[in-house]
This record gives sequence, structure tokens and C-alpha cells, in this order.
Amino acid sequence: VAAGESKRMGGLDKIFAELAGRPVLARVLNIFAACEPVDRIVVVMSNANLDRCRALVAAASYARPVDCIPGGLRRQDSVAAGLKLLGDCGWIVIHDGARPLVGPVLITRGLEMARDTGAAIAAVPLTDTVKLAAADLAVQETLPRERLWAAQTPQVFRRDIIERAYADNTPGVTDDAALVERLGIKVRLFPGSYDNIKVTNPRDLAVARALLEQDGK
Amino acid sequence: VAAGESKRMGGLDKIFAELAGRPVLARVLNIFAACEPVDRIVVVMSNANLDRCRALVAAASYARPVDCIPGGLRRQDSVAAGLKLLGDCGWIVIHDGARPLVGPVLITRGLEMARDTGAAIAAVPLTDTVKLAAADLAVQETLPRERLWAAQTPQVFRRDIIERAYADNTPGVTDDAALVERLGIKVRLFPGSYDNIKVTNPRDLAVARALLEQDGK
Repeated sequence: VAAGESKRMGGLDKIFAELAGRPVLARVLNIFAACEPVDRIVVVMSNANLDRCRALVAAASYARPVDCIPGGLRRQDSVAAGLKLLGDCGWIVIHDGARPLVGPVLITRGLEMARDTGAAIAAVPLTDTVKLAAADLAVQETLPRERLWAAQTPQVFRRDIIERAYADNTPGVTDDAALVERLGIKVRLFPGSYDNIKVTNPRDLAVARALLEQDGK
Repeated sequence: VAAGESKRMGGLDKIFAELAGRPVLARVLNIFAACEPVDRIVVVMSNANLDRCRALVAAASYARPVDCIPGGLRRQDSVAAGLKLLGDCGWIVIHDGARPLVGPVLITRGLEMARDTGAAIAAVPLTDTVKLAAADLAVQETLPRERLWAAQTPQVFRRDIIERAYADNTPGVTDDAALVERLGIKVRLFPGSYDNIKVTNPRDLAVARALLEQDGK
């Protein structure tokens, strides 16, 4: 899913920003296309970027079919468009196009964990002390840190589950798992990576570059 | 406060790690010593690092008195030791020694905000979707992101308030404000900075270097 407007990148779309010699999106596609359990990839883009995305895919030769399709106004609409195109299949892996530091281990781990419950999402323990605050910024509560996790992607779902979740078109959710949770279906966390950051502004891009260098990638 | 053991830095204490040409601790001390409303600085250190800290302070010439004293086993014990040495004064600014990207603006802003309620802490809105999970990693709840803040330091308190908070020696709190909240005293958040990260491992150090370069510092 890469249909965001990238207002925060100052006009430059984050998924085409250069990271260690290639666009963020190309990096993500390479990783997914080289991942053994992945059969097919659908990239959901904003209309404005569709041609550029298709050119990028045409210039590469991925070991899996890759489609680029236009998304919707909200993230949910974009995911729904992708699900529709994918049609009949066993498992769906949803990934943020702006998380270029994902690796094949996370994708495979997600698929394994989802076998249990039908729904599994990457997450890391929060290292910050988290405060719940009122509108006037008065602290209402310090939350129990040992039980708090930051959700990431990949988020992996059995096809019938995510399809049911998207039939309930509730606005305002910030990740796909939240829609599944509303159905009363158990979503399980699996260990993501602190390096698996979302690149939403130039600062994040500088951090992603530093993390790649740190790893000698 | 810089009394942590830095196990995660692979033996190297994070506060002596080099960042843009000088140790993390030297950077923090320079910022506080050059900040107009700051009268006096106490650095609370592990016993093992005390000599090294004193040498670092002796080699510089800060515009404010700087003391280095040994801390305790827990962060709370270290803060309590610092409070004791500071004795009678109007306001206390508590800062993590491992947050070297703090600036004078945050310190001054904290002091201004604390005037209202007696207690104010730096914080940034969480950008992640946060899940509350059970011990088996099943998601129990997606928390309301728009009300969640990651606490940072500086944390600023009127002296009598933080002293009362530390008289209640409750174990297991992860920031000083949590002790004040237990007294029923209102703690207010003020805008921190996403760059004001805590350096606890070599990865964080690489990120801090990238952020400084990004800012041309």
C-alpha cells in the first residue's frame, strides 16, 4: 500500500525517494518478489504516481507478477482495491510501501504466526513511557509499558477474515488489524524490528540511510 | 541522570560514546550550562564512571557549577541523590544524560509550562498505532492514538512537588512524572522533539549522528 499523498516529504513522494541507490518502492518490491511464499504482488498507488510506478516495475524483472493499481482516498479504500484485484487466494500480506527496511524473515514469520489465529501483525515493544492525555495536555494516566506494542507491517490475514473485516467499512482506523479486532477475531503480534521504520518525511529517510549503513547493507 | 549500566552498548557507556566530535555527556552539559535559567547542574553517575565524569567536567569550563555524584541501583535512587545535593531551590529540571539532542528551547519551554501546574514534561505525539497485548501476545485493544504521547525529558517540577513525590518510594516507575501523578497533582505535557531521542544502543547512536548531520549541526 503506497497511495499516501506524502505531503510531509515536501512534494517528493516518499516511495520514490532514493535509499542506498534505488527508490524506496523498488527496494520493497525486490524483497517481496524474492520471498519464497509470495505468489503475487499488487501495488496500490495514488493516481498521480501510477505511471511512474508502472515504469519502475516494467524496468525490473521480478520473479513474481506485480500489478500497479490506483488506490482510494483513505488507506482503507486502497487496501480494499488491492483485495479486490487479488481475488481468490489463501493468505494476504499487507505492507506499507514506505517501510523499506522489511526483510524476508518478517514476511515468513508473519505467515507462520497467522496460521494459528488467522491474523498476525508485526509489532515491537514500546520503549517510551506512554501518557494518555486530555485535550488540554494534562496527563490522565501513565500506561502499563510492559503491555504496549507499536504495530508495524507486514500484517497477515487469512483471506476470508480480512474480506469480512473490510465489509465493515468503519472510518478512522489506523491499521488493518483494527478492523479485524472489531469482528472479535483474535489478532496475534509477532516480533517485528525496530529498524522496520516508516519513511514519512526527510528525517525518516536520513534515519533509514543510517540504519542501512549501520548494517553494512 | 546518567547512572545506567549501558549493557546495551556492549560495554561502552552510552554517555561517553562519541557524537559529532565529543562525548554524549559533554554535549548535554554544554547545552544545560549555556541555558540562561539554569543555575546549577548535578550529574548523577554510576560509581564505575564517576572518575571519568569528573575528569570530563574538570577539562571543560562551564558557566555554571557542575557536580558529579554517585547514583543508586534504580533510576529513582539516582534522582533522589541528585535532589538531596541540590537542596533548597525553586525548580528542578530532570534530564536523561542519554538524550544529547535536547536544546535550550526545550529546557526554557519546560520551565515556562511548569509555572502553571508545578509539573511539566516534554512529550511527542505517538505516530505508531499502539496495541495493548496480553502475555500470549494476543491483541486486547487498539489504543486511541490521538490521545497518546511518548514522554521524554526534560521533566520540570517545583521543588516541593518532586520532593513529596520522591518521599513515596514506589518501585517500578519509568519516569519521574509518574510519581507526581500518584500524588494527584496535575502534570502537563509540553511539545518535545522527535529528534530528542534516548541513546541506549549503537543503533540509536547511528540515528543521532544522522539527525545531527541532517540538521547541519
